[in-house]
Amino acid sequence: MIQRGLLITTNNIATLAAFDYSKVKVGKRPTVAILSTGSEIVDIGKKPGRDQIRNSNSVMLKVMAEQCGAVAEIFPIAGDDLSNLRSQISNSAKGKDILIITGGVSVGKYDLTKAALIELGAKIFFEKIQLKPGKPAVFARLGKTLVFGLPGNPVSAAVTFQLFVRKAIMQLQGSSATALKQGVAVLSSNATAARDRDTHLPSRLETDENGRLIAVTLRSQGSSDFVGFAQADSFVFLASGKAAQAGETVDIVFL
Amino acid sequence: MIQRGLLITTNNIATLAAFDYSKVKVGKRPTVAILSTGSEIVDIGKKPGRDQIRNSNSVMLKVMAEQCGAVAEIFPIAGDDLSNLRSQISNSAKGKDILIITGGVSVGKYDLTKAALIELGAKIFFEKIQLKPGKPAVFARLGKTLVFGLPGNPVSAAVTFQLFVRKAIMQLQGSSATALKQGVAVLSSNATAARDRDTHLPSRLETDENGRLIAVTLRSQGSSDFVGFAQADSFVFLASGKAAQAGETVDIVFL
Repeated sequence: MIQRGLLITTNNIATLAAFDYSKVKVGKRPTVAILSTGSEIVDIGKKPGRDQIRNSNSVMLKVMAEQCGAVAEIFPIAGDDLSNLRSQISNSAKGKDILIITGGVSVGKYDLTKAALIELGAKIFFEKIQLKPGKPAVFARLGKTLVFGLPGNPVSAAVTFQLFVRKAIMQLQGSSATALKQGVAVLSSNATAARDRDTHLPSRLETDENGRLIAVTLRSQGSSDFVGFAQADSFVFLASGKAAQAGETVDIVFL
Repeated sequence: MIQRGLLITTNNIATLAAFDYSKVKVGKRPTVAILSTGSEIVDIGKKPGRDQIRNSNSVMLKVMAEQCGAVAEIFPIAGDDLSNLRSQISNSAKGKDILIITGGVSVGKYDLTKAALIELGAKIFFEKIQLKPGKPAVFARLGKTLVFGLPGNPVSAAVTFQLFVRKAIMQLQGSSATALKQGVAVLSSNATAARDRDTHLPSRLETDENGRLIAVTLRSQGSSDFVGFAQADSFVFLASGKAAQAGETVDIVFL
């Protein structure tokens, strides 16, 4: 009833105790390095200039990774200079199972993260995906470290973490449930996918008096609206080009 | 947008960072003592005799309390002897915000927990409730410590923890969201409340292809069936005397 690969939870730990498992073998907690990049990012506690924002991604990704069971470490912000970025990637990846880099994947003229990874000899598995948000995401391996280059926008970083990085962290621990729980809900308002990209819309779930699960997509002023995202407990999935009306059923994943 | 009383989560911590809150004032983590009682309980690692079970409640309640933000400590099992129980209650409650006692509230001839609490001068707020499970639950105050006497059956202890103790832990931290999230779901099979007691049925939620939220009540071989409980993510609520058919809507709370 408690099989290899199952997560130990508040609900099943009593079963372990009742059957006398005072010690159990568990998966090793993966180690995760977190590196924010870009001259548009400043540390918390510093005053952002024009076109700059504070580094909210690092702390968010740290707690997200820890919630999946990882041991996470935040590294100093890397600048927009290729040789500097290269050495910071190399340094932060050292001995880690996973390196998460945010920003630098599509901003400005150069795709610096990818360039730095290639110069370091990383193997690139994918480097542009037909997803919204997430288009510029990069997945690579540098030595033994899995590297995820996520978009710098906080909401895009959060969504792509949940879709890709979470799965890797669960898998590395030996979890047999690496996917988020799926379901079907009813849209509370019209929603549209990107024309050429499968789309995940952060949403909040409620139930109506008929026991229907209602997905309220969180209005977003662009992909940096993490204030709206704060209420998300699910994503609505819409295939590329699809438009769904209020009242239609849509596929969802639970966060 | 982040108000006093709101829980800091993976979803909203980025907002704090973005608005430069590198340090925030948070509620103090309540301290919780956990005391299992009864000669029918043996420690994990020991072999239970006839009519004995291992102490699964303590570890379960510890992780449940910690998940609510408490700092929890397990005390040695107290025997079925009144003077011993009295001194163990007194000792474990010392300096704690909350003491959770399981067992001893209705087993056998004597209601030992209540007797010990009264002898210690505790103020009893309630001592029998019209709830299933939970009928013998006791709520009292001993000095400055809130005391919850929960039933010894693991499922009953888990349900009453979620209904009562969770709320107290959240409240003591200053949380403004002390209640579990409520909703409406559709029953997957017939269910009946106790004739004279409002009933909470542990259940597992799924969605059907119409976006309806389906509550699958977890079949239980009595209130000690914590193996079935391991899958619970919700409780179905049925008012006393009520019978609901498969396909009917019922009130639920999300765990």
